Amino acid sequence: MASTPVPAFKPFRLALIQLGQLGSSTDKNLAHAREMLLKAAQGPSGDSSTKPNLMVLPECFNSPYGHKHFPDYAEVINFNPQEPYDASNSPSKSVRMLSDVAKETSCWLIGGSIPERDAVDGKLYNTAMVYNPNGDLVTIHRKIHLFDIDIPGKITFKESTTLSAGNVLTHFDTDFGRIGLGICYDIRFPELTMIAARRGCCAMIYPGAFNLTTGPLHWELLQRARAVDNQIYVSMCSPARDMDADYHAWGHSTVVNPLGEVIATTEEKETIIFADLDPQVLESARVGIPVTTQRRFDVYTDVSQ
Amino acid sequence: MASTPVPAFKPFRLALIQLGQLGSSTDKNLAHAREMLLKAAQGPSGDSSTKPNLMVLPECFNSPYGHKHFPDYAEVINFNPQEPYDASNSPSKSVRMLSDVAKETSCWLIGGSIPERDAVDGKLYNTAMVYNPNGDLVTIHRKIHLFDIDIPGKITFKESTTLSAGNVLTHFDTDFGRIGLGICYDIRFPELTMIAARRGCCAMIYPGAFNLTTGPLHWELLQRARAVDNQIYVSMCSPARDMDADYHAWGHSTVVNPLGEVIATTEEKETIIFADLDPQVLESARVGIPVTTQRRFDVYTDVSQ
Repeated sequence: MASTPVPAFKPFRLALIQLGQLGSSTDKNLAHAREMLLKAAQGPSGDSSTKPNLMVLPECFNSPYGHKHFPDYAEVINFNPQEPYDASNSPSKSVRMLSDVAKETSCWLIGGSIPERDAVDGKLYNTAMVYNPNGDLVTIHRKIHLFDIDIPGKITFKESTTLSAGNVLTHFDTDFGRIGLGICYDIRFPELTMIAARRGCCAMIYPGAFNLTTGPLHWELLQRARAVDNQIYVSMCSPARDMDADYHAWGHSTVVNPLGEVIATTEEKETIIFADLDPQVLESARVGIPVTTQRRFDVYTDVSQ
Repeated sequence: MASTPVPAFKPFRLALIQLGQLGSSTDKNLAHAREMLLKAAQGPSGDSSTKPNLMVLPECFNSPYGHKHFPDYAEVINFNPQEPYDASNSPSKSVRMLSDVAKETSCWLIGGSIPERDAVDGKLYNTAMVYNPNGDLVTIHRKIHLFDIDIPGKITFKESTTLSAGNVLTHFDTDFGRIGLGICYDIRFPELTMIAARRGCCAMIYPGAFNLTTGPLHWELLQRARAVDNQIYVSMCSPARDMDADYHAWGHSTVVNPLGEVIATTEEKETIIFADLDPQVLESARVGIPVTTQRRFDVYTDVSQ
């Protein structure tokens, strides 16, 4: 991973689609996600003159979020980075839709995450996918840190009841820079962003779905923490909140700049937010407070090595 | 360091002395620091029935803060952890005063930091000191990351003009738990707290002096970030602000709990703040959101190993 030349960070526009869901039908949810992606591709001006370069969907965007639901909604993707992949003929209808929209809009797309079933061993994963503007599926990220928490009287959730954990760090290269990718609970583990930033990522993006306990406590704090420590952009894209669903998502999709400042955010309702990511902001943060060159790897280990 | 058994974390009271300075006289500043320490030792009730277990002074508490001042104010400490050290006969008058107060109050004391001159090679360091309730100097911490920043039109500061950097991570064991120690700019480097927490520290404490640019941006964020990621207490103790001094300290001495919540803080004036550190808060944070046992050291390196 580290050996490929890092593409230069150029200004780009990010769109986060804080998607609502239409009940438990995957087909309806995919149709609605498609509709919202087409809207996001029009940019904040609504006429495509301010078109984003990269669109992001939330975690588990096409189905209810909950360990009991994952087996019913899991799709086989069958992606192998070593082999050509024809997304338009993917066994996954979610992949086919996302590839189609990326191509139709000529946008990079982080297709949120979906429950994935491995074709070989049948294991289930929480898997994010990245599409280029040609509609190619360029990489997937299987959530590395499963969301197993138990705060008595507030929230108990155990993804590991039905899911397995990924074991590969993920980033991808675009014409506007290298982007790191995690999913939700992955953000609690600082190593992922430290490694991504030290390998040249200008932004770390997490489809995620915090809840009404962990959201107010830590959603913004964790993004600002990752941003200030690594002097990169950090963003999380949440589903909209649905109090009729089993899981109540926090919403508040957010973009934080390399100074740790929130530059775009929202409340809990379905919406699309946009942010312009600027290499000069990253550069001036790093020149002003040059932590990226002051680390003492003679005293402690560099986790990216 | 890692091989000594970790002392159990028991409830303890922390006192942060947000000290003002009386101009450029070390003697006057030491006398005032002594007076404030004796006051802090009386606890929030003022009658010693609520006496703190650990008192903390700010960075560079006995002299003006600035690279041009360090050579004039530096004191030889001549501490060697392998050899007995008689603090009451130290070559440093700051050490003698601090040792005396720790013994007189029977309190643990982080004696802020002072400019230190190495007796052997003459190099200067920004050095924190820890005293036990017998008045023994138990360890020192030489600031590992020197404060060299340049934010045009706002603040330019280069400690490395006159100071050398330490190269040893520091923690110390008390009868109420293991405490990690850094100084100010050290907090920008997450590895120190990650290592301290993984080696059993229940709290990480930084005498520090952010300024009117970096203070509002990052003072609280960095403490909350270190606390939430490592699920330990984190605290910084600042000097009071003096607009007549060369360097304008942010103040806002703060204590953050293992959930990342601020439990004690203040504005910029001279004051003493107290906080009760509670093992149950740490334990319930770690049981509720068990990141300390969910890390994927099969996927990335453990910086504490």
